[in-house]
Amino acid sequence: MREGIRFLLIGGDLRYRYLAKELLANGYKVCVYGFESEEIDTSDDCGSPSLKEAVEQSNVIVLPLPVTVDGKTLNAPYSNVPILIESLFELITGDKLVLGGIIPQVIKDVARERNLQVIDFFEREELSVLNAIPTAEGAVAIAMEELPITIHGAKCLVTGYGRVGRLMEKTLNALGAKVTVAVRSSKDMAWLKVHCTDSMNIGQLAAENLCDFDLVVNTVPVTVLTEDVLKRFKEDVLIIDLASKPGGVDMEAASRLGLKTIWALSLPGKVAPKTAGIIIKVTILNILEERKT
Amino acid sequence: MREGIRFLLIGGDLRYRYLAKELLANGYKVCVYGFESEEIDTSDDCGSPSLKEAVEQSNVIVLPLPVTVDGKTLNAPYSNVPILIESLFELITGDKLVLGGIIPQVIKDVARERNLQVIDFFEREELSVLNAIPTAEGAVAIAMEELPITIHGAKCLVTGYGRVGRLMEKTLNALGAKVTVAVRSSKDMAWLKVHCTDSMNIGQLAAENLCDFDLVVNTVPVTVLTEDVLKRFKEDVLIIDLASKPGGVDMEAASRLGLKTIWALSLPGKVAPKTAGIIIKVTILNILEERKT
Amino acid sequence: MREGIRFLLIGGDLRYRYLAKELLANGYKVCVYGFESEEIDTSDDCGSPSLKEAVEQSNVIVLPLPVTVDGKTLNAPYSNVPILIESLFELITGDKLVLGGIIPQVIKDVARERNLQVIDFFEREELSVLNAIPTAEGAVAIAMEELPITIHGAKCLVTGYGRVGRLMEKTLNALGAKVTVAVRSSKDMAWLKVHCTDSMNIGQLAAENLCDFDLVVNTVPVTVLTEDVLKRFKEDVLIIDLASKPGGVDMEAASRLGLKTIWALSLPGKVAPKTAGIIIKVTILNILEERKT
Amino acid sequence: MREGIRFLLIGGDLRYRYLAKELLANGYKVCVYGFESEEIDTSDDCGSPSLKEAVEQSNVIVLPLPVTVDGKTLNAPYSNVPILIESLFELITGDKLVLGGIIPQVIKDVARERNLQVIDFFEREELSVLNAIPTAEGAVAIAMEELPITIHGAKCLVTGYGRVGRLMEKTLNALGAKVTVAVRSSKDMAWLKVHCTDSMNIGQLAAENLCDFDLVVNTVPVTVLTEDVLKRFKEDVLIIDLASKPGGVDMEAASRLGLKTIWALSLPGKVAPKTAGIIIKVTILNILEERKT
Repeated sequence: MREGIRFLLIGGDLRYRYLAKELLANGYKVCVYGFESEEIDTSDDCGSPSLKEAVEQSNVIVLPLPVTVDGKTLNAPYSNVPILIESLFELITGDKLVLGGIIPQVIKDVARERNLQVIDFFEREELSVLNAIPTAEGAVAIAMEELPITIHGAKCLVTGYGRVGRLMEKTLNALGAKVTVAVRSSKDMAWLKVHCTDSMNIGQLAAENLCDFDLVVNTVPVTVLTEDVLKRFKEDVLIIDLASKPGGVDMEAASRLGLKTIWALSLPGKVAPKTAGIIIKVTILNILEERKT
Repeated sequence: MREGIRFLLIGGDLRYRYLAKELLANGYKVCVYGFESEEIDTSDDCGSPSLKEAVEQSNVIVLPLPVTVDGKTLNAPYSNVPILIESLFELITGDKLVLGGIIPQVIKDVARERNLQVIDFFEREELSVLNAIPTAEGAVAIAMEELPITIHGAKCLVTGYGRVGRLMEKTLNALGAKVTVAVRSSKDMAWLKVHCTDSMNIGQLAAENLCDFDLVVNTVPVTVLTEDVLKRFKEDVLIIDLASKPGGVDMEAASRLGLKTIWALSLPGKVAPKTAGIIIKVTILNILEERKT
Repeated sequence: MREGIRFLLIGGDLRYRYLAKELLANGYKVCVYGFESEEIDTSDDCGSPSLKEAVEQSNVIVLPLPVTVDGKTLNAPYSNVPILIESLFELITGDKLVLGGIIPQVIKDVARERNLQVIDFFEREELSVLNAIPTAEGAVAIAMEELPITIHGAKCLVTGYGRVGRLMEKTLNALGAKVTVAVRSSKDMAWLKVHCTDSMNIGQLAAENLCDFDLVVNTVPVTVLTEDVLKRFKEDVLIIDLASKPGGVDMEAASRLGLKTIWALSLPGKVAPKTAGIIIKVTILNILEERKT
Repeated sequence: MREGIRFLLIGGDLRYRYLAKELLANGYKVCVYGFESEEIDTSDDCGSPSLKEAVEQSNVIVLPLPVTVDGKTLNAPYSNVPILIESLFELITGDKLVLGGIIPQVIKDVARERNLQVIDFFEREELSVLNAIPTAEGAVAIAMEELPITIHGAKCLVTGYGRVGRLMEKTLNALGAKVTVAVRSSKDMAWLKVHCTDSMNIGQLAAENLCDFDLVVNTVPVTVLTEDVLKRFKEDVLIIDLASKPGGVDMEAASRLGLKTIWALSLPGKVAPKTAGIIIKVTILNILEERKT
């Protein structure tokens, strides 16, 4: 499988340093572009080519995660110069496989027009599942740092029971917390019963007694923690919001009520860049494997 | 919610004795029909009415699980006389709610024609999830009975990762077994990694080294344990097939190879009739609750 | 380590068949005596010697577990003739190492007088700890068989928190039961808090509300379940007594109260003879290893 | 039990603020001395007495944990003036109960001469057991902060299997780490087998392959991590030493080898002062309870 594959990593953050290392350790050829200000391992024969040469020499091009922040240039914090997405795509031919995380629709459209093979690895289920591990650990680390009590014995409310919700439930339970998960469906309630975890109806939080909770972790990207719900927590509760924009907490109300709220986004790359890099590697190799068959 | 509801349980096995008891304990009126040869608790004012009277006096009618074995009469092992489904349905009017488990399509068709409200509670997700608990425990009890070793430390292969597969993995892990789950998708493999459980590709079992496994539990209702796979197990392996018909084991090949194979169906009602009755109660009450809103 | 060691297994039950097999698999020479009616693997050069020859040819002699039931003959269920302990010991010289499980004091005395090296492997801590695994699984298997409910969700009382008590707590918790352990010391209560398990004061059971328990497992070999305590259980509770004689349940009172009570002794050899044999092997090899150093 | 008891807390750190609050919440009278610079809850009728008056009005006096740092004055970080131990003890009469954590032998001697009732609650087993929870969580928090990988999947070596060792094993396992514990006795190895955790002989670490470990947590207060052992770790291993003086790591060698080593002492009060305060309360109430009977 490894033969003939030569990766080019263009841009990316600390995770990509580990991604390069791991791909090399798995026996692949790996070159990089846009990593001038951070040490990174590459194959011996990479040299210091121009972007054009780098693209030509590779057959799998890995763009950053996220691909871009500003919509125009690649997200390349370790690059000395901005890398324009448009210029890059002009260099890419249809025989290359282009991978990237969170690819804007406009780029996907361009790629389709030009018959390029572009795959967004961030849309892969295994990446989302595996990323839930560092996310949950990151949330636990924040709670350990902020709370004057141990997680063991802490009364915790998790809102939502998707991937991150499930990992939060698992991790907090494992540490000996008393966990309640707020969910919508009777199916989710059944799964929580399987796990001997208490459940609440997420639609009726404003009618529940919530004043015992020491820690609340939201995983739902809609405002479930409204003012009416927030009012029911005790004043020294810690609220961690893991939901992507727009988040799940009415921040203004939380601030008015004096509730400590931390909006923790993109934890995997922050708390465990090496693990996050390995997760990207696993996902990329799965993509390559599936294309073979 | 309880006011005005009067259940009629017609037929059913030991689980329905517990179902009746539990519904009564939850404050509902409960009468029964077809339970002459088994003691069962009912409301005080039930009397011994005819089937016609019994139907008239109730507003929620609960048919057996499964509703029928022969397609004509209700599955009523404790009834002294056969109860014809056709005759029963002639007595039911559109204001009654009819619940049953595994309702044959022909009955559903009849019900629709006659504008009856018929719901198959066996199709509810929470029932399937909760039933996976006694199923997994039943499989463990069989393994404990049959194997000369403890589950703790036993090398176990679970094929499939649906509800029952997940419960098997959880239960065997909890008891200290060394569990491998054979699955198809990289998403399932990611979840298994989350649980620190080994995984195999279910499509390539015939190419794996399987001779260390002491116990194999299949949960997939297609023949994944073909002769080519069976050949790779050691001779004193125990194979438990939990999959509904046609099962997942090539039974003929297993027999030819001298492998001990147990096809264990309908475990919840057998190993834990009270728990199974409670699960039916929970599901029925969920159905009633959702109809209110 | 293996060189020069030649085991002689004299008597013993099914566990010893697995013990022989495992010692052989570990590279040792193994001969047996008193196994005429059960197939057992041995080294190729054993032949069918007399007891005298068998003893002479070996250097480590393993007596049964327990060594004797009647005090005179070895516990040798698969032997065609009784093996007198006294006659056997006359054949043993001081250069042999004699191992056995539960060696009566009188035999130990004889051995000391004659300067024989005799070690009771049943007194080893690791054997007791490891045997607690099949004991707890055996108790769980009985409970699964006897109760109409799953262990998952069952309310269980464990009395005592020694090795078996700890394994019972661990195993029942792992299966999703709601476990309370009755203990005496505040230290044990602290450990139970660590495990998020409820505790009760074992000295005050007669003053507690015990009517919710579905299952009671006693591990203490003094009568903790007195009539005053038994009275407080509900009538369909299942009581399993794992304590060696005299047991921990007032059996007469339990019978008078109509409480189902099962006194389950010597579970490892019954429910998992192979695992029990392996545990004996591990213990014996530890003994040999320690003598070297 | 609560009637007639009036606590006086003299000195102490943040844990004592929570201790005061918890004792009040349990219905006791609580006054304090030496807390001028930190808000702390007390009973309404405490007033601002002199030390002499404060002692006279109370019957249970709680000294800090540790009682003293310099051997002369109480460990009272929130006091505006030093509190001399000698002066304090001159005020205490034999009818008072004096509790404190880590009481120097010289103070114990003085107390015995003067027939004072002095108890060191730090010597209580339940306190040591319960304190192992925040200690283990604190170590995990450090590891999460320092390592570029998640605890999930990390290869961890724990040296020692006392209270803290057991909690480390439990907590790391719960988070999905791959844990090995280095122990001395075959009994401990048996317990680790019960928990499905790998074990090593702590006496032979220098002969083991240790280069896979990402994290090492020592709990043994003798130098087990000698230079010969340290040499075997990979260069980016993280070593956390939880052992009290003299610690278990040859710090000089670790520094020479460039291994990152963190000596983390007294974690409970630092990472979870409220939990630590509650643990002291539980222990103190146990002491009072036992004196009654």
